[in-house]
Amino acid sequence: MAILLGLVILCIYLFRSTTPQQESSGLGRSTSAYITVGAFLLGALCSGIAGYVGMWVSVRANVRVSSAARRSAREALQIAVRAGGFSALVVVGMAVIGIAILYATFYVWLGVDLPGGMKVTDLPLLLVGYGFGASFVALFAQLGGGIYTKAADVGADLVGKVEQGIPEDDPRNPAVIADLVGDNVGDCAARGADLFESIAAEIISAMILGGTMAKRCKIEDPSGFILFPLVVHSFDLVISSIGIFSIRNTRDSGIIGAVEDPMSILQKGYSVTIILAVLTFGLSTRLMLYTEQAPSAWLNFALCGLVGILTAYVFVWITKYYTDYKHEPVRTLAFSSSTGHGTNIIAGVSLGLESTALPVLVISISIISAFWLGHTSGLVDESGSPTGGLFGTAVATMGMLSTAAYVLTMDMFGPIADNAGGIVEMSQQPESVRDITDVLDAVGNTTKATTKGFAIGSAALASFLLFSAYMDEVASFAHVPFNQVDIAIPEVFIGGLLGSMLIFLFSAWACSAVGRTAQEVVNEVRRQFIERPGIMDYKEKPDYSRCVSIVASASLREMIKPGALAIISPIVVGFIFRVLGHYTGHPLLGAKVVAALLMFATVSGILMALFLNTAGGAWDNAKKYIETGALGGKGSDCHKAAVTGDTVGDPFKDTAGPSLHVLIKMLATITLVMAPVFL
Amino acid sequence: MAILLGLVILCIYLFRSTTPQQESSGLGRSTSAYITVGAFLLGALCSGIAGYVGMWVSVRANVRVSSAARRSAREALQIAVRAGGFSALVVVGMAVIGIAILYATFYVWLGVDLPGGMKVTDLPLLLVGYGFGASFVALFAQLGGGIYTKAADVGADLVGKVEQGIPEDDPRNPAVIADLVGDNVGDCAARGADLFESIAAEIISAMILGGTMAKRCKIEDPSGFILFPLVVHSFDLVISSIGIFSIRNTRDSGIIGAVEDPMSILQKGYSVTIILAVLTFGLSTRLMLYTEQAPSAWLNFALCGLVGILTAYVFVWITKYYTDYKHEPVRTLAFSSSTGHGTNIIAGVSLGLESTALPVLVISISIISAFWLGHTSGLVDESGSPTGGLFGTAVATMGMLSTAAYVLTMDMFGPIADNAGGIVEMSQQPESVRDITDVLDAVGNTTKATTKGFAIGSAALASFLLFSAYMDEVASFAHVPFNQVDIAIPEVFIGGLLGSMLIFLFSAWACSAVGRTAQEVVNEVRRQFIERPGIMDYKEKPDYSRCVSIVASASLREMIKPGALAIISPIVVGFIFRVLGHYTGHPLLGAKVVAALLMFATVSGILMALFLNTAGGAWDNAKKYIETGALGGKGSDCHKAAVTGDTVGDPFKDTAGPSLHVLIKMLATITLVMAPVFL
Repeated sequence: MAILLGLVILCIYLFRSTTPQQESSGLGRSTSAYITVGAFLLGALCSGIAGYVGMWVSVRANVRVSSAARRSAREALQIAVRAGGFSALVVVGMAVIGIAILYATFYVWLGVDLPGGMKVTDLPLLLVGYGFGASFVALFAQLGGGIYTKAADVGADLVGKVEQGIPEDDPRNPAVIADLVGDNVGDCAARGADLFESIAAEIISAMILGGTMAKRCKIEDPSGFILFPLVVHSFDLVISSIGIFSIRNTRDSGIIGAVEDPMSILQKGYSVTIILAVLTFGLSTRLMLYTEQAPSAWLNFALCGLVGILTAYVFVWITKYYTDYKHEPVRTLAFSSSTGHGTNIIAGVSLGLESTALPVLVISISIISAFWLGHTSGLVDESGSPTGGLFGTAVATMGMLSTAAYVLTMDMFGPIADNAGGIVEMSQQPESVRDITDVLDAVGNTTKATTKGFAIGSAALASFLLFSAYMDEVASFAHVPFNQVDIAIPEVFIGGLLGSMLIFLFSAWACSAVGRTAQEVVNEVRRQFIERPGIMDYKEKPDYSRCVSIVASASLREMIKPGALAIISPIVVGFIFRVLGHYTGHPLLGAKVVAALLMFATVSGILMALFLNTAGGAWDNAKKYIETGALGGKGSDCHKAAVTGDTVGDPFKDTAGPSLHVLIKMLATITLVMAPVFL
Repeated sequence: MAILLGLVILCIYLFRSTTPQQESSGLGRSTSAYITVGAFLLGALCSGIAGYVGMWVSVRANVRVSSAARRSAREALQIAVRAGGFSALVVVGMAVIGIAILYATFYVWLGVDLPGGMKVTDLPLLLVGYGFGASFVALFAQLGGGIYTKAADVGADLVGKVEQGIPEDDPRNPAVIADLVGDNVGDCAARGADLFESIAAEIISAMILGGTMAKRCKIEDPSGFILFPLVVHSFDLVISSIGIFSIRNTRDSGIIGAVEDPMSILQKGYSVTIILAVLTFGLSTRLMLYTEQAPSAWLNFALCGLVGILTAYVFVWITKYYTDYKHEPVRTLAFSSSTGHGTNIIAGVSLGLESTALPVLVISISIISAFWLGHTSGLVDESGSPTGGLFGTAVATMGMLSTAAYVLTMDMFGPIADNAGGIVEMSQQPESVRDITDVLDAVGNTTKATTKGFAIGSAALASFLLFSAYMDEVASFAHVPFNQVDIAIPEVFIGGLLGSMLIFLFSAWACSAVGRTAQEVVNEVRRQFIERPGIMDYKEKPDYSRCVSIVASASLREMIKPGALAIISPIVVGFIFRVLGHYTGHPLLGAKVVAALLMFATVSGILMALFLNTAGGAWDNAKKYIETGALGGKGSDCHKAAVTGDTVGDPFKDTAGPSLHVLIKMLATITLVMAPVFL
């Protein structure tokens, strides 16, 4: 955390010297700088708290779930879901309340809408610091957490499962504690910070877009458009709570009967939430987005929201198709393991690459249809041309995230169940208890994969919004219309090339960090097995803390390189091309090149994240499929090949993949905050 | 080939109905359609011949090289280089002569520059069909060839090397003939068609750009600018021949002395060629590009050429750094094999992803510097603004390709040496002969990898040219200026997203085609070993022809899906958005979306190809490094992990990777030819 704070302060000084001139109408240069810095720190703090809460709850829930598993599966499921739900609600709630408080403070403090004060439509621009702070912490949490959890996991598996042949989470393995801690750090804390960031970034960008649109259309009371995202997410909190509580402990559940369908129980809760989301979304569009100018606009926007909700649903479905072993792709992958390690990897890589196609088509269709619904909403600017298009995509994003708290609950549920299983194994409970947690764990794997699909889909939509917000901001700083990014200009094209390259390099460094740390763990575990031969007979206790400290320090060290790349490169590229543009007489060149960098990075990042997440998930489940007894079952050559695939998939799906969609949004927020540097 | 022709005719009919209206000043609609179709067929034919020649020479040279290897290493090297050189010169020569003949025919036939005839600056646009024909055949040759060679290779290795433990290219392996044939099909024929296509596409796009620029600047005699690329490549033929003949058979070479440095001998020849290239390039710029308007322009363009030559050199160097086991990256990769299959794959993937960074930086710098050299060349249009920028990048591309024939020679040399080794092994020659061919084979591996680096670099530059040519063509068809592709428009952004997705999906299908075909080969080879137990004792002859026919028919079948994707998707996307743009009042929407598709596909394609080629090459050489005895040597667990990496790398580096850069250029030429469909 010390390193983080150091970087934070560095960043602050970097952009304090170059903050906007534009706000001079209302507040001075330094005030605006302090505001952005303050918002940044608050965002970073909230994001940190969100992560911490996720971890805190999860650690306490683990024990209770594992003890509940001794009584009934249904009870264990319920406790895990409610614990996950609690942290999810805290995370979403903090994002909403944090922004609401900031907004209210600025509103009163700066005397908005008073004569001589600033316009309410300019207010959301002051919030970007909050979003940047959130994504800043989320990136490092996700990177560090991902490296931590996967290095421990891969290291523990390579020596324990493969070399010594002891089961997963066996107390004899010196790396087992590091692995369990990693599940909490990587999945609960990191995903909490990540979703917090998603929601914060999306709310802020939608507010900026709403404000800009309201200004252009000269809507008499723009507050409705600006505050709409906050309202949607407040409803989200309510309906997700209802969804979570709909999963109740039916008293009659025996152990066997209830074990069968934890997935369908969760699905039922999700359906409840989605139906409520459609209803409340319609209600809030009617209340907030009704204007006299365009009486039917709210209906169009409600349809946009529906598009978003559908997109979320389809995304979850596609991810399940490609990663669940009930379907064709994973079965083919498992079958290809029967001809060896090599064919397994080839098949997994092609599966991952192929799985990018459908989500991209879905995203394309939903962006275009939301844009056109918004465009035809009847909102026009003073020259009479329609302006609602981008706001339409913003509303679709909100629709997509309108069930965020429930999705996050399902995600948090996974690691809680996983760790409960670990505790059961370590405390050597009877087989039947382990069976219950195993089933919950398998469901958790699927929900984790679908959440990633959901997260990347919303990141795709949100980054398109942030991109528009960036262009609006550059235009308002530079007092020049800035509404096109022409990739036929060589420098702009190069910006795009560099943006895509950034994604490849970031993924490379994230994966290799896991590989390197895992090798350290492997060597340490091997050393302990050799030096203390009593470990295998339970006579000696392994030194768990050594592994924990190795992984902790390595993950802190290894996250610096990719993290710094993500933060520094857009700033450097923007600055270089700004200088180049200055000397060659190209105004705004820096801003344009950064815009191209952002868009190409977004596109490549979406595809790369989809590839990594899906391939990783598919490998994991192909292994699980073989472990159910198919194709030779556990211990066969086929299973060994599948374990190799799973090992490769670990850094893909839990380190590089989830970091990428945080990276996409962080690039967007960093360009928003640093925009003055590029002008 | 029948399927090819079917598709060809389909394509012709597809676009015959929609060909340009613009040429009405000079020639009718149907004439121009027939011209394009004729050029297309000629291009396809020439490309086919180029591939055939490559294969024909290589098949004949194999035997001679292997018999020469029984006498002296130097002689074997010389024969292999000269054979490679012959096919390289034929390929480059055909590209140059084909275009020259077409140009001359059109010039006379259409009465260019006569009163009432068409302008000479419009002539190059008629040649695009030739480029499309060339890339069309090259794509299928590369795809089919790649699937053929790698399926045979992977299949033969998996059963022969891994399961039965017999050496590579052992005559007892039923798939060995298919593997050897595959080397010729995949490496000689496919690479011949590929480089033919590169050169043709680049000449044509440079001619179009030269013509457009000459027209804009009102240069009195534009022929110099238009014919410049042809002159450069004619010089290429001469200087590469000199380079090839500089590798002479020094009579005193004993077997041991000469074995040591075949790589440095080839390098020496390359240096000779490069020095000559710089000289002749300067000469031809002075002769062809001197105009009274801007007396020093030729000097700037000569510098652009120098930038291109340097880029080629640096690219070759970077590829060598990442794939040669003398350097850090491959050694780290080999070391990571010591902790198992999984860490080997993770390390290889990260190495490949990381290796994209430097080439992208180099390409960025060279595009920008060539653009600025051209921009400041003093050439101005009637309004006085500088126009030479794009032509500068075109000249840089020509500089890069100005040693193409020599590079192609080094590339062709690889499979000839490889096959000679196979023949030596199969005819059970003494160990010392096999040693000589092994060294030549290892050198061939490195030169093959560097050629891929060279090819992707030139594809990157050439596609940027083709992209500009596309925009020029759309503008001239639509009579509307078309000089920007604004990715802030949602539809255009989506075009980009689809373009990148295309690359991922294409790579997925190419890799999985190899995986599937290899599984068929594995099953067939296993069957033969079981049914004819005498094979292992040399008592029975294996049925080679079954494997050959399995691979041949599978590769023809499997190449249809990715090939069709590449051809159909830009047309479909362009057409859909054209219709959408028509109904929503967006003129040129189709053309813009296709432009974005093209650029994003180019960027993603470059990165993906770099990733696949480098990772594959590095895995191959990490295995070779371990086989030299490092980290346990042949047969150790570390070696087994490295073999897995090599198997994964095979479809990466020899099927998907090289197909991608053909794909990039085919997308560019297909959009050029099909432009009228999108308007």
